[in-house]
Order: sequence, then C-alpha cells, then structure tokens
Amino acid sequence: MAAKEPEIIRDKDQMRRWSRAMRSQGKTVGLVPTMGYLHDGHVSLIREAHNHTDLIVVSIYVNPGQFSPSEDLSTYPSDFHGDIQKLMAVPGDVDVVFNPHNLYDYGTSKNANANEAARASDDARVGNGGNGAVSCVEENGLGHETWVRVERLEKGMCGQSRPVFFRGVATIVSKLFNIVEPDVAVFGKKDYQQWRIIQRMVRDLDFGIRVIGSEIVREKDGLAMSSRNVRLSPEEREKALSISKSLSRARLAAAEGQTNCKELRDLVTQAIHESGGRLDYAEIVDQESLEQAKEIRSPVVFCVAAWFGKVRLIDNMEINI
Amino acid sequence: MAAKEPEIIRDKDQMRRWSRAMRSQGKTVGLVPTMGYLHDGHVSLIREAHNHTDLIVVSIYVNPGQFSPSEDLSTYPSDFHGDIQKLMAVPGDVDVVFNPHNLYDYGTSKNANANEAARASDDARVGNGGNGAVSCVEENGLGHETWVRVERLEKGMCGQSRPVFFRGVATIVSKLFNIVEPDVAVFGKKDYQQWRIIQRMVRDLDFGIRVIGSEIVREKDGLAMSSRNVRLSPEEREKALSISKSLSRARLAAAEGQTNCKELRDLVTQAIHESGGRLDYAEIVDQESLEQAKEIRSPVVFCVAAWFGKVRLIDNMEINI
Repeated sequence: MAAKEPEIIRDKDQMRRWSRAMRSQGKTVGLVPTMGYLHDGHVSLIREAHNHTDLIVVSIYVNPGQFSPSEDLSTYPSDFHGDIQKLMAVPGDVDVVFNPHNLYDYGTSKNANANEAARASDDARVGNGGNGAVSCVEENGLGHETWVRVERLEKGMCGQSRPVFFRGVATIVSKLFNIVEPDVAVFGKKDYQQWRIIQRMVRDLDFGIRVIGSEIVREKDGLAMSSRNVRLSPEEREKALSISKSLSRARLAAAEGQTNCKELRDLVTQAIHESGGRLDYAEIVDQESLEQAKEIRSPVVFCVAAWFGKVRLIDNMEINI
Repeated sequence: MAAKEPEIIRDKDQMRRWSRAMRSQGKTVGLVPTMGYLHDGHVSLIREAHNHTDLIVVSIYVNPGQFSPSEDLSTYPSDFHGDIQKLMAVPGDVDVVFNPHNLYDYGTSKNANANEAARASDDARVGNGGNGAVSCVEENGLGHETWVRVERLEKGMCGQSRPVFFRGVATIVSKLFNIVEPDVAVFGKKDYQQWRIIQRMVRDLDFGIRVIGSEIVREKDGLAMSSRNVRLSPEEREKALSISKSLSRARLAAAEGQTNCKELRDLVTQAIHESGGRLDYAEIVDQESLEQAKEIRSPVVFCVAAWFGKVRLIDNMEINI
C-alpha cells in the first residue's frame, strides 16, 4: 500500500510545467480524469494507468460545462479530503492531483462584462448547434465560447436526454489534455458512449495521446460503481439492481442464441419497469459506431440509462458474439 | 540569405517525433500554418516567428475541411516546388516543411465504407450546427466527425457567406497544433477574424501555445497580398485596388474626426461598387469581440470582403483612436 500524499496542483500553468518537466526527464505521464467522490471504479482506472506510464495525474474537477442548469451540478457529491485519503491507499502512488478552481474563468476580459454575458447566454440558447441547449458555463457568462463536438457519436443515447453533456465532456477533456499533456489517458467503460466519443475525438483532432478504456467495476451485488449511487435510498438501491441483473440475463440469452435486439431490449425494459425504475433508454448498438442494431451479428454493447427516484444511473454490457 | 533546404515531413507521427526531439533538446518550435502558394506575406509570418522561437515549421496543406463543395478548393493555386525555393530564400532558415497528404484519412475504419459515408454526409447536412452546410471533408466521407467551433466569433462577416469556413479552420489548426506541438504559432492579421478565432480557441481550450498576429503585407500599390491574387485578370486586379484605397481613406477620415460607422462604411461600399466589385460585407467591428460598432469609441477594425470576377478578396485596417 502506498502512503505518499499526492502533490496537489490547482493552477493550470503549474500543472503544465510539472508535466513538461517530467517529460523532459524521460518520464511518461498518465491522466485519469474524474469528477471526484472517488470509489473503487476510479481506483481501477488508476491501476490501469499504472500499466502504461511512469507517473499518474488524477484530475478532480466537477465540470459545469457538461451540466445543463436543470441538472444535478449543485447536488453532485464531493469529498476532497476523503478523495485524497482514498488516493493515498492506491498501490503504486498517485503523483499529482490536479484540482483547479474554475477552468472557464480566463480572468478579466472585455467579454466578461454583464452585457456580453447576457448576450452570450442568448446566443447559446438560440445558436449552439441548433439544439437550443445551454450549459452552466454559459449561464455563468464568463465568455467561454469554444466547443468541441463529435457530431455523430454524441447524438444518440445519453446525448438525447442530456443535450449539452457530450459537448461539455469533449471540451473539458480537450482542455485537460492541453493542460496536463499526458501520454496516456484512462476512461471507464461504464461511460461507454463517453469513452467512444473521446477515442474518436483523439483520432479526429490528432491528439498525441493514447486512450485506454477500463472495464466496469461492480459492487458485490452487481450494481455498477458510480459517484451517484450514494444518493440512492436503500430501497432505490435495491430496485436499481434490476439494471445489472436484467443486462446479465440479456447477455446470457444472447450467448444462448437470442440475437433479436427487440426481444433482448424488452427483457431489460420490462425488468426495470417492474422494479419501479423509469427508463431513459435501453439500446443495443455497434461497439464502435454506436448505431442501433436489429440483430446481433457483430460485437455490440447493450447500454441502459434509468432513473430511480431522483438519481439517473447508467450501465452497459458488451456482447461479443 | 539562407540556402538550407528545409526537411520535408509528410507523416504526422514523424512530425510529432521531430518536434518532441527538438523540445527535449531545449529548443522552441514555431509554427506558421499556410495553404501554400507562398508570397511575401507568408515570408513576413516566418520572419515574425523567428523573433520568438529557435526553430520554424511551415505547414503547407490546403485544408478541404474549410471549403464547402461549391467553393474554390479545386482551383486553389499550388506550386510546391516554387514554395520550397521561396522558403530557401528566407533569412534565418525554415527547418521543416510539414506537407501531409490528407489529414482526414485515418486508415481503414468501419466508418469509411460507402453506407457510413453517405449517412455521415446526410447527418452533416441536417445536423452540423444547424446551418445545413457541409464541407469537402464530409463529401469525401472518410468518417471525420469532430469539429471545433468558436461559436460567437465565427458567426459574423466571413462566417455569414462561408458557413463551414471557421469550423474547418479551427479544427485543422487544432489538428496541426496537436501534431506539431509548437510553442508559438503565427497567423496573418489579413485574416483578421480567423486570427481572433484562433486566439479565442487557444484561450478556451487551454492550448499551451502562444498565438502571434502578424501585420498585413501589401503590394506597392496597396493590394493586400493573397495567394488568390494570381487568379485576378490585370483589369480585375486594378479594380481590386478600390478595397485598400477606400479603406485607407476611411481610416484617414476617422483620424480626422469622422466616427460615424455608417458614413465610413458608405465611403468604402461606394468605392468598391463604382469600381465594379461585388461587395460581400464591409463592417466596422470591435477588435476583440468582433461586434459591430455604430460609433468609433474604442479600437475597431474595418473588415471588407468583395468579389472581383470569380475571385473573393478580403482586407482590413485597424483604426486605433
């Protein structure tokens, strides 16, 4: 067990200087981007990163750019002190925790005054990609106006119900990549669509960074680990098991020859409905293009999002037949 | 006069390796992105870059991502051999010419087959930012789908008449930044809106790169240098002088106290019209926000785009009063 306390860096220039200094010594740097409230799923990402690089940076930053004002930014759980304790217990050490204050605040600018801010917000409502959505960043009106979009992969599944989400994710990950300048970045496959979007973005924008997808970590009873799980009541948590249980049954059914996606989807939607969950989507899609499949003829992934009480959970299972 | 022939690199991984090797030796790298057919305006960008870095990379790449299918990609002038000769005459040397073949070809991919390509193109028509526009990259259907947009600054002026232009520029510059990984990049202020968009993008996405704007270089008679000038007939070239001449008159008028932007714009639009040019726009805008001014009360820039025959020219003058 490690006991080294990671260096905590809050300034982006200092972060970049650290990374460049390490690289100039021939060291490789791995980045594990997180929003904090760390659990064993995050720890598994860090273990995975250790397989690829000499040094590990864990970023802890709840990104307002991927939340719409109606979403749960304000209630997103956080426990920085607990996170550091957790990281000190990770075998092999975490070298740096990058914990910036606000990555969308660029200091005084002509564009940060009230009029401009109001106008930016208006523009965003009517003009950002034609979907009329706006994130907490535009609400704050600090003048940020550059967004990275992976235009096809961002459309379906979570993109349907969270219109600013993947725009915000791709943008903050670009920012973190440019600040930390890592050799390798590790993302969890629990956020499957996010992982594929980042992979595609890295390819399309020629980032000199290798993206690794790390397997889902589950509680003993099968619930996929998530920082949001803590917000479930004991009853909701029990009901939420319907997701992983029905996904497992669907995967087994597929392995036994059921390749009709509607049948498999019905199995999952019915189980979640019966448990009292409110389904957002249950889709069986190609693992790379994320296009919906009707029959399983190549590797697919079964992705689910559902609400239990006020908590929206996602989960998925790859089906490789 | 230099006579050293620059190293020509066509492969992006080789380009990044060169840059990282130089950086590991403590050298700084400057990037001058061009589309080739180099003229003295480009040479001035290289001279400017020499003021800031040890080594200079000039990229020569006509970017299909910033042309719509109806624009002049196919007739854009090129002369690679002549460009190399020109670069060999630059005082202080150019170290590398980065001349990739196709920066949107990512090798064999499931997404590069015909069905996907057609669908990508359809998606782009209906979905890319809500403007229904599509670039030559989407026409080719190689599966690129990540775009960087500077959502407010890209809207006006050239963005009005060239709907995919700035999306394509911001995206290709991001790609070049990630491939070349320069310390400094130099852009010409002739493309004023482009320069401000790149500056904003670098700030918003936290690129570790300093962006320098370099002054417009003009022919003796005042015509702003452009690779497109070669496509003007002698008569059109003569008529095109109406742009720089009327801009100069407007700037003089402003210096003499005329701060009403409508009056100043009328002066320019009338001159271009009388010469037989077809105006695209003539706007007096804030130098940073690019928002239209009614009265000149702070530093502005007078930007013009106009057609002479089949050639679209742009020019601008800063008015600092």
